[in-house]
Amino acid sequence: MQAHQLDAYILPSGDPHQSEYVANHWKSRQWISGFSGSAGTAIITSDHAGLWTDSRYFLTAEEELKGSELILHKQVIPHAPEHIEWLVTSLRSGSVVGLDGTTFSIAQVKALEHAFHEKGIKINHSIDLINDIWKDRSPLPENQVFEHDLRFAGVSRIDKINLVREKMKADFHLISTLDDIGWLLNIRSNDIQCNPVTIAFVVVGQAKTHLFIKQSKVSEALANTLKNDHVELHPYENINTFLSELPSGKTIQIHSGSTNTSLYNSIAKEQIVAGANITMELKAIKNPTELAHIDNAMLKDGVALTRLYRWLDKTLDERTVPEVEVAEKLAGFRAEQDDYHGESFGAIVGYKENGAIVHYSPHPDTCATIKKEGILLLDSGGQYLDGTTDITRTTSLDGKPTAEQKRNFTLVLKGHIALANMQFPLGTSGIQLDAFARQYLWQHGLNYGHGTGHGVGFFLNVHEGPQGISPSIGRGSQVFQQGMFTSNEPGFYKTGEYGIRIENLIVTEATSTTAYGTFLKHKTVTLFPIDSKLIDKTLLDENEKKWLNDYHKEVFEKLSPWLDAAEVGWMRVMCLPC
Amino acid sequence: MQAHQLDAYILPSGDPHQSEYVANHWKSRQWISGFSGSAGTAIITSDHAGLWTDSRYFLTAEEELKGSELILHKQVIPHAPEHIEWLVTSLRSGSVVGLDGTTFSIAQVKALEHAFHEKGIKINHSIDLINDIWKDRSPLPENQVFEHDLRFAGVSRIDKINLVREKMKADFHLISTLDDIGWLLNIRSNDIQCNPVTIAFVVVGQAKTHLFIKQSKVSEALANTLKNDHVELHPYENINTFLSELPSGKTIQIHSGSTNTSLYNSIAKEQIVAGANITMELKAIKNPTELAHIDNAMLKDGVALTRLYRWLDKTLDERTVPEVEVAEKLAGFRAEQDDYHGESFGAIVGYKENGAIVHYSPHPDTCATIKKEGILLLDSGGQYLDGTTDITRTTSLDGKPTAEQKRNFTLVLKGHIALANMQFPLGTSGIQLDAFARQYLWQHGLNYGHGTGHGVGFFLNVHEGPQGISPSIGRGSQVFQQGMFTSNEPGFYKTGEYGIRIENLIVTEATSTTAYGTFLKHKTVTLFPIDSKLIDKTLLDENEKKWLNDYHKEVFEKLSPWLDAAEVGWMRVMCLPC
Repeated sequence: MQAHQLDAYILPSGDPHQSEYVANHWKSRQWISGFSGSAGTAIITSDHAGLWTDSRYFLTAEEELKGSELILHKQVIPHAPEHIEWLVTSLRSGSVVGLDGTTFSIAQVKALEHAFHEKGIKINHSIDLINDIWKDRSPLPENQVFEHDLRFAGVSRIDKINLVREKMKADFHLISTLDDIGWLLNIRSNDIQCNPVTIAFVVVGQAKTHLFIKQSKVSEALANTLKNDHVELHPYENINTFLSELPSGKTIQIHSGSTNTSLYNSIAKEQIVAGANITMELKAIKNPTELAHIDNAMLKDGVALTRLYRWLDKTLDERTVPEVEVAEKLAGFRAEQDDYHGESFGAIVGYKENGAIVHYSPHPDTCATIKKEGILLLDSGGQYLDGTTDITRTTSLDGKPTAEQKRNFTLVLKGHIALANMQFPLGTSGIQLDAFARQYLWQHGLNYGHGTGHGVGFFLNVHEGPQGISPSIGRGSQVFQQGMFTSNEPGFYKTGEYGIRIENLIVTEATSTTAYGTFLKHKTVTLFPIDSKLIDKTLLDENEKKWLNDYHKEVFEKLSPWLDAAEVGWMRVMCLPC
Repeated sequence: MQAHQLDAYILPSGDPHQSEYVANHWKSRQWISGFSGSAGTAIITSDHAGLWTDSRYFLTAEEELKGSELILHKQVIPHAPEHIEWLVTSLRSGSVVGLDGTTFSIAQVKALEHAFHEKGIKINHSIDLINDIWKDRSPLPENQVFEHDLRFAGVSRIDKINLVREKMKADFHLISTLDDIGWLLNIRSNDIQCNPVTIAFVVVGQAKTHLFIKQSKVSEALANTLKNDHVELHPYENINTFLSELPSGKTIQIHSGSTNTSLYNSIAKEQIVAGANITMELKAIKNPTELAHIDNAMLKDGVALTRLYRWLDKTLDERTVPEVEVAEKLAGFRAEQDDYHGESFGAIVGYKENGAIVHYSPHPDTCATIKKEGILLLDSGGQYLDGTTDITRTTSLDGKPTAEQKRNFTLVLKGHIALANMQFPLGTSGIQLDAFARQYLWQHGLNYGHGTGHGVGFFLNVHEGPQGISPSIGRGSQVFQQGMFTSNEPGFYKTGEYGIRIENLIVTEATSTTAYGTFLKHKTVTLFPIDSKLIDKTLLDENEKKWLNDYHKEVFEKLSPWLDAAEVGWMRVMCLPC
C-alpha cells in the first residue's frame, strides 16, 4: 500500500464474474481475514484492519476473527454499503483507495465514486496487491465442461441465443455471470463448489457467439457441437483484448451490475450500450420442461430426507451423532437418487444453539454432537440434472419442545403459510410480500435477520436473481412473473439456544385475470412434512390448518409411491391432519 | 416551438417550489389541456398533443379532454415516467425537447437526461413558451403572511432554524418547498388553495436566515418580529442573484428532489453540496405539542361530521341534495369549530358511480343529485390552526347495500384494520406495509389504483412527505419513525357503480424494544364511526371485531361530551358493538 501510495485497500468477496460463491483462486478476502462466510468485505488501512458482514454471519465471524488483528464491523442492514460510509468517515480528504477492478462491478465502483466524491477521496481501481503476496494461491479451476441435455434444459442453445438476440439493443451482448453462461449454452461444470458452472465469459454477436474459456476444459466433441451451433471458442484471458478490438461502429450491451470494471475499461466508451443482463431475466422464468423436472427433483429430495430423518431417529436411540455425519449421510441418501450431481450448498446442520447461527456450517473437529433431545435445524439441497433443491426443516428430536419453542415455531409457520397462500397482482415485487412472512413474529416483538426468499436456479446456483423476497429494495424490487422459482424461508433465532427455519421452494403461477389485473400465486413444490410436534395448534386459524393438512396430504400422496412399506408408515404419521 | 427549433415541449403540473397543488399562476398544464387533476403531464410535439395521468384521474381526464385534440395516455403505474418512455420511443435521435427549468427539479431533469442520453435526444431547459401566449395568466398570489402561534407550533422558529443548522453539511441550506418554509418560520398564508403556505424561498445561513418573499405580503410588525429572529427579508425574484453571488469559498446544501433547475444553474458548481431537504425530515416528526393539538382537531372534525351526516339523513327524507351542497354544508359545520381556517382540499363527494372516480370533485352545474339510496363516498378535510384533518367515510344511504357491496366494503375494512393493528420494527418502510391493506381484496382478484397512505402536515399541506404507504419505491421507501402522521386509506372502485374508501389518520408510536429491535405501531387518531350497515360481519375474525368495537367505543366516549343529547343518541347507535 505504501509503495502504491494507497490509504486503504478493499477486498470484496467477489470474482471477475460477480459470483456469490467463488472458486478458491478468488478467496482473497477469506485468505487475508480468515472469515469463511460468503458475504463480507475486508478493508485495510495503515492503522486498521476491518471485516464487514451482516447478522447471518456475526457468530461465525466472531469465532473466525478471534486472535487476529481484524475488527468485526457488524452491518445493521444486510448488503448495505456500511463499509463505504466507514471509509468516508475515516479517511481524510485527498486519500486514495485501492482495489482490484476485476473483482468490482461497474455499479460497485460507481457507488464508491459517488460516496467518495464529496470528500475528495480518489480510487485506484487497477491494483491487485494480493497476487504477489498470496504464495499458495490456488490456480484457476480446470474442470471439464459437459452438456446439460436438452431433455432437461427444454430449450436448445440456438433457441436461447436467438431469444437473447431478440432483446439485444446493440450488436453484441457481454455476459459475465457464470450461471447465465451455463444456462445460455446448456453447459455445466464443477469449477465452483456446489455451483455447477464453468469459469468463462460470453459475447453474443449477431451471427456468432464467442465463448472465452480455458480450452483444455472443452472436449473435442463438445467443441465441435458448439461450433455447429456457431459458438466460437477463445482463450479465457483474451476477453479484454476482444472487447478492446470490437469492430468500430459496432456497439455492445453491458450490464453495470454484473460486468467488472476491468472489462468495462477495455471497451471504447462510444461502443457501450448500458442495459440488462438479458440471460438473467430469461433464465429466471423456468420453461415447462424445467418445471416438470423440478417436480420430479422434489420427489427425489423428499425420499432422501425421509431416509435421513428415519436413520437419525433410529441412530439416536443407540448413540450420539456429530452434526457433520448428518450432512454426510444426507448427501449419501441424495446420491442414491437418479441423476444426482452433488450438494447445492454445504448443508447447515445446526443442533440446539448452533441452529441460531444462520449460516452455520459444521466442521468435523468442532461440530456439536446430537443427542435425542432439543431442536435440530437442517438446511440442505441437492443438485440433480433435473433440478436444484433447497429445503430447511426444524425438528424436535425428543418430541418435548418448550412452550416458547412451540409458539415461536408456530409464528414462523404462520408467516410461511401467509406467503404460500397469498394471491397478488402482476406488478407486485418481493419487498411488498416480505413482511407477510414476518407479521406474526413482529406482533410478538420478534424478527429474523435475513431475507425471506431467494431465486433458485435449475441445475444451477441455489441463489439466483433477479427476484427475491426481502425487506431490501436492492434485493426485493423485482416484480414476480409466472414461472419464477423462489424459496419461502422465514425463521427465528434465539442466540445461544436454538434456531427455527421452515423453507419450501415455490413456483409463481397465474391464477386469474380480472378487471383489476392478472393475479398470481405461489405453488409450493417442496415435498416433506413439517414437524407437527413443534406446532401449537391453538395458534393456527382454520385457513392455516387447512393449508397444513392439504400440504401434508399432498406430501403423503406424492412421496408414498417412492417409499417402502416401513417408510410409508412413518410418513403417514408425519402427515396426520391436525 | 418552431422558432426555438424544439421537437417537443413538456408541461408538468409543478411550480418553482415543486408543489403538488399550485397557485393559478402556474397552472399552465391545465390551461393548455383543460385537465384539472393535480397529477399529470402534457407533451406537445409537431404532430401530437398528449396528456399523461394515472388511474385516479382516468375518468376525470376523459371527460375534460373530450372535444380537444389531446390524447389521453393512461399511466400503468402512478408517478412512473411513462411519458419519458414515450418521448424516447417517439422522437428521432438528435431531437430537442424544451421545458421551463423553473418548474422542473434537478432530479427530474437528470432523469430526463439519463433517459434521453442513449438516443441522443437533447434538452433545452430554459424555455418558457407559455408566458407569452397565456394572455389572461393569473399574477403571483399576494396574500398576507401571518404567524402560526407558538402555542400551536410547539417549537420556535429560532429553535427550528438551529435544528436545521445542526444537520447542515454546508454553510448555507436552500429551502424551496413552501410547506417547509411555513414550518421552519412558523408562518402561514393562503397563496395556494387549501394549502396554507406563502410563495417564498429560504436560505438558512450560519448567522442569518434569508427569506425571499414579495415584501408587500409581510406586515411591518411581522417583519420586525422576523428581524429580531435574524430572518432577513429579500424580494422574491432576487433568489437567483443571491445564489449566484454566494461568498466564494462558502458552500450551500441543496436537495435535488425539491430544487428547481433554474436555481441550480444559478449556483457555482463547486459551491454545491448535494444533500437532504433538512426541514422535510424534521417536520415529518410531529412534536408533542403538535400531537396534542392533533387529538383536539380530531374531536372538532368528528363533531362537524356528526352534524353533516345527521343533516344529510334528515334532508334526504324531504328532498334530494346535490353533491356540492354536501361539501358546502360540511365546510360550514367545520367552520363552526374553534380555530377553523378552511378546507384542507376540495371535498370529494362521490355519489354512486361518482364514488368510483378516485379524485372526483363535484361541480355545481354537473354534479349528481343524492337520493336516499345507494352509496356515498365522502373524502374531506379541514385546516385548523391546531391541525390538518383528512377523513373518508363511505355510507349506505338507505341501509340496503347489495351483498357484493357489503363484501367489498368489508374487504377494504379488513385491510384498513390489518394496517391499523400491525406492529413492525423500526427500519420498516411504507412499501413493506402497503400490501397488508390490499391482501383481502387481492385474494378476491380485486385491487385499488392508488397508494394506501400519505404523510399529513400540521396546519400545512394535506399531502406531505417523506413517508408514504405505497407499492411504489419512490413513494414508499421512507422508514417510519415515532411521531409521523399518515393516512390509512384503502379503497375499492367499481367503475360506473360505486366507490368505497375508509380513511383514518394514524400516528406512528413506539411500543417496545426487544432483542430483535424497537417496535412501532400506528395509533388511529381520526374519530368517526365506520358505517356498520356496510359490514358483512361474517367476514370479520375475532381480532377484527375487537378492533372495530374498541374503535367505536373510543369514538363514542371521546365525541359524546361535545355533542348535544340528540347527537349522542345518534352516535350511540352508530357505535354499537358488532
